[in-house]
Parts: sequence; structure tokens; C-alpha cells
Amino acid sequence: MLWSGWGDPEKAVTLPPGVVTLLEQALGVQPAERPPVALSEVTLPPPKLDMAVSSELAMFVGPPNLHSHRDARIRHAAGRSTTDLLRLRAGDASGAPDAVVLPATHNETLGVLGACARRRVAVVPFGGGTSVVGGLAADRAGYSGLVAVDVRRMTGLVSLDAESLTATFQAGTPAVEAEELLAAKGFTLGHFPQSFQWARLGGFAATRSAGQASAGYGRFDEMVLALKVATPEGTIELGRGPSSAAGPDLRQLILGSEGAFGVITELTVRVHPAPERTLYQAWRFGSFAEGVAAVRELAQRGPLPTVLRLSDEAETGVDAGLHGHPAAGGCLVVAGYDGTSAGVEPFAAAGAAALAAAGGTRLDDAIGEGWAAGRFDAPYLRDALLDAGAIAETLETATSWSTLVALKEAVTAALTASLSAQGTPPLVMCHVSHVYPTGASLYFTVVAAARENAVAAWGAAKKAATDAIVDGGGTLTHHHGVGVEHRPWLEREIGPLGVEMLRAVKARLDPAGILNPGVLVP
Amino acid sequence: MLWSGWGDPEKAVTLPPGVVTLLEQALGVQPAERPPVALSEVTLPPPKLDMAVSSELAMFVGPPNLHSHRDARIRHAAGRSTTDLLRLRAGDASGAPDAVVLPATHNETLGVLGACARRRVAVVPFGGGTSVVGGLAADRAGYSGLVAVDVRRMTGLVSLDAESLTATFQAGTPAVEAEELLAAKGFTLGHFPQSFQWARLGGFAATRSAGQASAGYGRFDEMVLALKVATPEGTIELGRGPSSAAGPDLRQLILGSEGAFGVITELTVRVHPAPERTLYQAWRFGSFAEGVAAVRELAQRGPLPTVLRLSDEAETGVDAGLHGHPAAGGCLVVAGYDGTSAGVEPFAAAGAAALAAAGGTRLDDAIGEGWAAGRFDAPYLRDALLDAGAIAETLETATSWSTLVALKEAVTAALTASLSAQGTPPLVMCHVSHVYPTGASLYFTVVAAARENAVAAWGAAKKAATDAIVDGGGTLTHHHGVGVEHRPWLEREIGPLGVEMLRAVKARLDPAGILNPGVLVP
Repeated sequence: MLWSGWGDPEKAVTLPPGVVTLLEQALGVQPAERPPVALSEVTLPPPKLDMAVSSELAMFVGPPNLHSHRDARIRHAAGRSTTDLLRLRAGDASGAPDAVVLPATHNETLGVLGACARRRVAVVPFGGGTSVVGGLAADRAGYSGLVAVDVRRMTGLVSLDAESLTATFQAGTPAVEAEELLAAKGFTLGHFPQSFQWARLGGFAATRSAGQASAGYGRFDEMVLALKVATPEGTIELGRGPSSAAGPDLRQLILGSEGAFGVITELTVRVHPAPERTLYQAWRFGSFAEGVAAVRELAQRGPLPTVLRLSDEAETGVDAGLHGHPAAGGCLVVAGYDGTSAGVEPFAAAGAAALAAAGGTRLDDAIGEGWAAGRFDAPYLRDALLDAGAIAETLETATSWSTLVALKEAVTAALTASLSAQGTPPLVMCHVSHVYPTGASLYFTVVAAARENAVAAWGAAKKAATDAIVDGGGTLTHHHGVGVEHRPWLEREIGPLGVEMLRAVKARLDPAGILNPGVLVP
Repeated sequence: MLWSGWGDPEKAVTLPPGVVTLLEQALGVQPAERPPVALSEVTLPPPKLDMAVSSELAMFVGPPNLHSHRDARIRHAAGRSTTDLLRLRAGDASGAPDAVVLPATHNETLGVLGACARRRVAVVPFGGGTSVVGGLAADRAGYSGLVAVDVRRMTGLVSLDAESLTATFQAGTPAVEAEELLAAKGFTLGHFPQSFQWARLGGFAATRSAGQASAGYGRFDEMVLALKVATPEGTIELGRGPSSAAGPDLRQLILGSEGAFGVITELTVRVHPAPERTLYQAWRFGSFAEGVAAVRELAQRGPLPTVLRLSDEAETGVDAGLHGHPAAGGCLVVAGYDGTSAGVEPFAAAGAAALAAAGGTRLDDAIGEGWAAGRFDAPYLRDALLDAGAIAETLETATSWSTLVALKEAVTAALTASLSAQGTPPLVMCHVSHVYPTGASLYFTVVAAARENAVAAWGAAKKAATDAIVDGGGTLTHHHGVGVEHRPWLEREIGPLGVEMLRAVKARLDPAGILNPGVLVP
């Protein structure tokens, strides 16, 4: 992955001149004053790790699997939020660990965690490194060092139970590789988040990821049947059978634990027969509220497409401008249908009938197919916007249907007011990309001019938006996680006694407090 | 509820003479030597509660809502397992609390728990009282008293969000009343476990109940969106929106907590438009394995009926004998379809096509309708069997599809061997009543002659069956809960560190350890 941005450097995009002009005229974006520094100019803290500690860690994983060179440290210094990228581009890799440790097995991971606990070395569990909420920003203050435990050597399909439709993977398996391994046997996991091309399965579990096809395949936390976790206090193995009443579901404490309770090393997930065909449709609704009513109808009464997304007027307008389609002025719905060769057309026809009945106007399927083709490209576009002197960032929530439209307006207003007051009026776009019978997610994309203080400016806007979310009955995050960014609000979501429950579990599994300090647990 | 058995005494049934003869011939059942004692002969421990404690508790709930009379104590002395009933029928109410406290509000509950914690009085949270795993058998040793906190004054629909399909209830609402309140507004919860006529919503949540229509409406734990809980350390309120990535899902620690972490006082659940019609079908499959393959096909590929049950040959034979139908020699499948007036027939037709394609022979719909009509009657039949000198008890598990048939055989063998070795060869029947894409539940009903030592004899058989379940990859319980009965095996299910996680949470929420001591947490 590009050290200062997203993904494969070969896939970098540049903005068309017309867009640059538009950014300048509409948002006051100025050509970037601070292009990314050269990699060689990045500053990072002097490595602090005691030689005795390095030697002990190397003993568990083998010397070639303990990396303390500058490149490895920079590549584990931060996640991929816009704030992370602004700092890296400015040459600031102050979050870099002292070393990167690459265990190949669960037992090696246990050994590493035990040694770090004894020596009070902080640990950042590291999967694909794609956190956008500061999930990798462990606070090293008070520790004798900071190491990233990167799971990338723990990959592969451990077993497949084709009769029960379950598969067990090592947690470091890249999502792409998991899909390839399953496809070879006729199956799919069906989990395609924005981070798909870079993320790893363990990270999906640790952050409660949700993919673009969640309507059809569910959230990642719903896919997980069993987990194996290495903690400083030993191994946890959870999950027997499809469902249980054997007390509280402790898997749900590991799911979403963001590396603060342990390192997930293996997981068993539900799989599905691979679709033989996928069809996409595009629809236009007159307003966001009309679109919400339509996708709610499908979520509550069916038929529910595999992918179902609704863009608001602003996002639809930008999309129409970029790709030239006739949804502008209204709201674009993209629906995707996975199915068998025989089943997919009736499925899509039923979806079309429901969307038409809900007041939609059908557009060319190519618009939906275009969305699918570019579904993992947005982060590349963000790099181009940063290059052009803009900030572009996303945030998200979920709430019940009855409060969805009001919450969307409140968050949009909060973002607009905050950034406008700072002299950089933003473009705020929103879409609904995950629907449930009882509510849906809201995903906001914000573009504004980047001034000298862009990190602080975005921080203020994010705070305003998060206050609006919590005040308006939304959850702090639908699928990005808590990290350090949302941690100040977590007590408002789960209450002081909820925070104490987290602390009690953490204290038992990680008594030395070495795991991802500062992340998740207030 | 009948103090020594199940339900409404007016609905008691007697066994037909032919069944009595059959029990005698096939299982060696002798006419009961120990009919239930008279209520006046029941012995219970002398009340131990200090007058100062009683006065303080009465202060929170009002004197008329603190019951320490004999009748109230006996009616809160035990759950409804066969072991519970054998003891009660013998006049043993040694589990009776010293008093029953009836708070009317969340704040009264908080006050009661706080006072009990200060004075080291153990508390049994009491809902419908229908536990079959010793969930009400709190261990009073070392406490200054034992009180039942009965939630039956906290009832009613707090709010309904028809747009989001959610409803908030007080946790003491009886399931029957919840359905009536929802039906008046055109909705249903769709949760119909065996205990439906007596259980209360809070108990469903505390035990992870699953109802007979779980294929259509899900398990109760899947229905719960938000919870309010009173603990000795204060209030917990959890759940915002349809789905969240804001860290571990702490609701899942309360669901299944069986009164050991707090008293659930309010809950928000998903509701559904009430079905306009329900159709039932009955099918015959040649063998249990063929039936399993068929219900698996429906669970994995659809269409999935609202109710889907498969009885093994033994259960089918008994059912055919009792109700006179032609499934004997094979395995009965009952499928139920909830739908709209227009939609239910196509739905049932699609189910029928799938069951026929899977090799089923359709029987008269009246057999399925008969199952539905008698769906809550089995516990009455148990009382009649106890009266007749037999023991009748159930146990259950769940496992993946690939191990289901083998686990069913192993558990049947373990029960048969244990009871046969004790001189009372049993009839063991089994059904699949909850199906998932990845596996299903197994529900066993055991009938055998009751000898003098029936409690110990069943205890040995239950131990053999539970060992077989855990050894065979099943979960300890699919929907009955842990209670005191399954507690010795919980560590095998969740591991020693899993047990420590439960203990850490309990220590934080209930530092005095007053909540349901001995239940759930090893």
C-alpha cells in the first residue's frame, strides 16, 4: 500500500481539469501548498525498544520476522483516515511502532503477547491497516516500547464444511485471498467493504465491518460463528454450532474489540454458494425522503436486493456530473442482485417491481454497473483530492427509520456550519448503504478546501457531526469502529456502567494494559 | 400456575388407559407410588429475613408488595424442570425464598437491589418462573436471606414505532399480553416458545429463548434492539439503532445473563406486521437423515417456512399413535406459513414444492393444524405422566448440519444406556425445531419409569447426555439456558478464560455477588 495514501500507487487517479476548476469555484480549494514529502523526509521517533526485548520477541517469531527498519515502521505508523494521511503527507510518522512483529501461528502470537505484557511493551494488532478512526493509534506513553503485531503471515483456509456452509480461516487472510480460495470451491463470503482490496478477515471481525452487499449477506459480525483469540492471559475459543443459549454470547465481546482485548488468530464464518450472475439496476427517486421510503419498503417487506444504496441529492448530483447520467436533481438508487443463472432475473424483476411501485423511475442498468465497477475506487479519489488541496473524509452512523431523515439533516447541518465558520464551506454528500428492517445507516462524504490547519479544522467538524449523531439518536458508528476518534463519545453510547463492563473485561484479559492502549476503551 | 406442575390446573389432562398400559408394558412404568402431597404438607425453610431488611425492602415497593406468606414463597421456590416438579410433588420447597418483592418501576428495582447488596441478601430475578434448567435455584448459603424479585408489576407497552417496526415493553409483560397489545395495532412479535402462555418478555431475553416460529421470526436474542437493566451498581441502557460498530455488543452480555448480572426492566424488540393467515402442512420422510437433508435444503436455499419441524422415527411413531396419522415408520415434518391473505398461498406452495423435491410425501394438512392446536400442551402431558409413575423430561442442543445426525445418535445412545443401566430403559424421542443456514437444534424428549430415586436417576442420565453433547460438538443448550444444571459444563463450552470474562463482568455489576448465586457463572 502507498505509504502516504491509499492502495496500489499504480492505480492513482488525477482529477479532470473541470473538477479542479469546480472545486476552486465552489469550495475555494487552492492548489495544494503542501504536497506529500518524500518518503526519505518522513520523521519518526527514535526506536525505543530494549535490545533484550527485541531478542525475546525475535525468539518467538524468528529473527527475519521482527522488522525494525524505517520502511516497516512508517508503513505501520497510522491507519487511513484523512487525518492520518494529512499527517503522513506532512512527514509526520510519530505513531510509528518501534518494531513490527510477524507471528506465523497462534502460539507464536501468544508468546509475543506474553513477553510484551511482562516487559510492558504496548502492542498494536495490525491487519490490513485500513482503519479510518485511529484504530492503530495506540498511546505509547508510559510503556517501554510499542510494537505492531502484524497478522499477515497467518493466512489461508483451514477447513471448509460445504454441508454446513462454514469455513475456517486464519485471521490474517486478505479478504481478496479468502474470496479466491472460496471461489475455487464454489463459495463466497459476500463481504465487500470499501477496504476489500486491502483488509484482512481478522480486522473485519475486530471492527464489526459491514460490506456493500450487506443486504444480501449480512454484516461481518453476523457471519462469524467461531473465533480463536490470543490474549496476554491465554487463549479464548468461542462458538459452537449455529446458535446457543449457553449464557452471554462472549463472541460479541471480541467482535468490535479493536485489538484491545486480544489478537484474533482464526475465525469460522458462514459462506454462501457463489452467485452465478449479478445484475445491477439504477433508479431515480424525486427526493431523499421518497428514496428512504422506498428502500425501507424493500427492507421491511422484501424483496431485498443483495446490494441496495440510496444517494442523496448532493451525492447524486456529483455522481451525475462525474459520470453523466440523468439522476441529477433527484436521488439515485443502485440495486444489485446476486443469484443463480435461472434465479437472478426473476429476483431482479421482483426488485424492480417493488422499486417502481415505490415511485422510482428506472434508469439505464449501465449506471448501476458503473457503480459496481468503481466500487473500491473512492479512496483513490480522496488521494487526488488531497493532492489538489482539498480534504475529503467520510463518517457514518445508523438509526431507526423514523429518525433517519431528521438525523441526516442534523449531521449535514452540523458539518456545514462547522466548516463554514472556519472559512471552508463544505460539500456534504450522504448515502444509505446498509438497510435493516428497523433502520439504516447514513454515510456522509465531506469535501472542503484544505487550509493550513486542515487536521484541526476537520477535527472540529467531526466533533460537531458526532455530537449531532449522538444527540439525534444515532449510533456513534455503524461500521468504522471506535478507535481513538470516537472514544470520547463512547460513554454516551453505552453509559458509565457499560464502560466499566469493558474495563472489567480488558483488565482480566490484558491486566498489563498493553493491547492497543487508548483505542476503544475510555 | 399450578404450584406442583404446569399451567392452569383446569387444563390438566389424564392419559388414555391405552397409553397407561403401553407405558407399563414398554417401559415398566408402575402406578405412581408418590402422588403430589397436599399444598398444606409442603415443607419450606423457616423465613430467615431480618425484620430490618424486610422493612427496608417494603419501603421501596410499598408494604403490600412484599410477600412473605407461605403460598407466595412456595410459588417462587423452583422452576419447572421435571426435577423441580418431582421435588415439589414430594413436598420439598427447600428452594423457597424468604420473601417475594414486587417492584413496580425500574427505580424501585434499583432500590431493592441496592438494599440487598448492602445487606448481603441473595436475589432471584423472577419472570414467568418457567426455567427448566434450575435458573431459579439460587444458592443461599452464606447470605443473610434470599428474596425473589418478581417483575410481574412491570408490564405494558411503553411505545410502538410503527415506521421502524419496533416496540418497547416493560420486561414483566407476559408474552400473551405482549401479543395482545401488538395485535390491537396490527403487529406481532412472533415469539412462541413452549412456555408462551406463562413466560414474560424479560425472561425470554435473560435466557436467549427461541420460539416455535424461529424460522420465520428469529430467536428472541435476535429480536432485541435495546435493553434497560437494573444492577446493584446502577442502570445499564444499551442499544441505539438497528446495528452498530461502537465496540463490543454489550447487549449480548445481558442476553443470556439469567439474572446473574441484573434485572432487565425494559426492552425494545423488533415487531412484524401480524400475519393475516397461517397455513400448516404435514409431510412424511423415509428416515431422519432424509428429513434432515430436506429441512437443511430449505434453511440454506429457501423458501424457509415460518415454522419448520422434523420429528425422528420414535417421536413420529408416538405422535402417530396418539393422533392416528400415517407418518408412522417414517419422520413427520410440520411446516407453517405466516403471510398476507394474498401471499400465504404462494408461500406455502413454494415450500411444498421444495419439500416434495426433497423427497417428502405430503400428508393431510390437518396433521399440521393439529400440531399447531396442541403446540403449548406438552407440559400438561408431562404432569399426567408424572401422575402415572413416569418421568418425562426434555433437553436440547444445536450443532452444525454436518454433525447433526451423529450427535443425535450419540445423545440418544447416552440417554438409553444410562437409564437402561439404572433399570428403567427409556423411550427417547427427538425433533429438529430450529433451523439455520449452518446447522440446527436437536430437542430430545425422554420418558421412563420413575423409581424411588427418580431425581438421581434423571441426574445421571442428563449428565451422560450432556457429556455426549459436549463431546460431539454440540452447544450445551440451544434455548433452555445454563441455570445450575448446565453450569458444570460451561467451562467446556467457553473455556477457562471465557469463564473469567463472565466473572469479571459479574464482579463489576454485582460486587456483593447477590444476584442469582450459583446460577450461570461457574
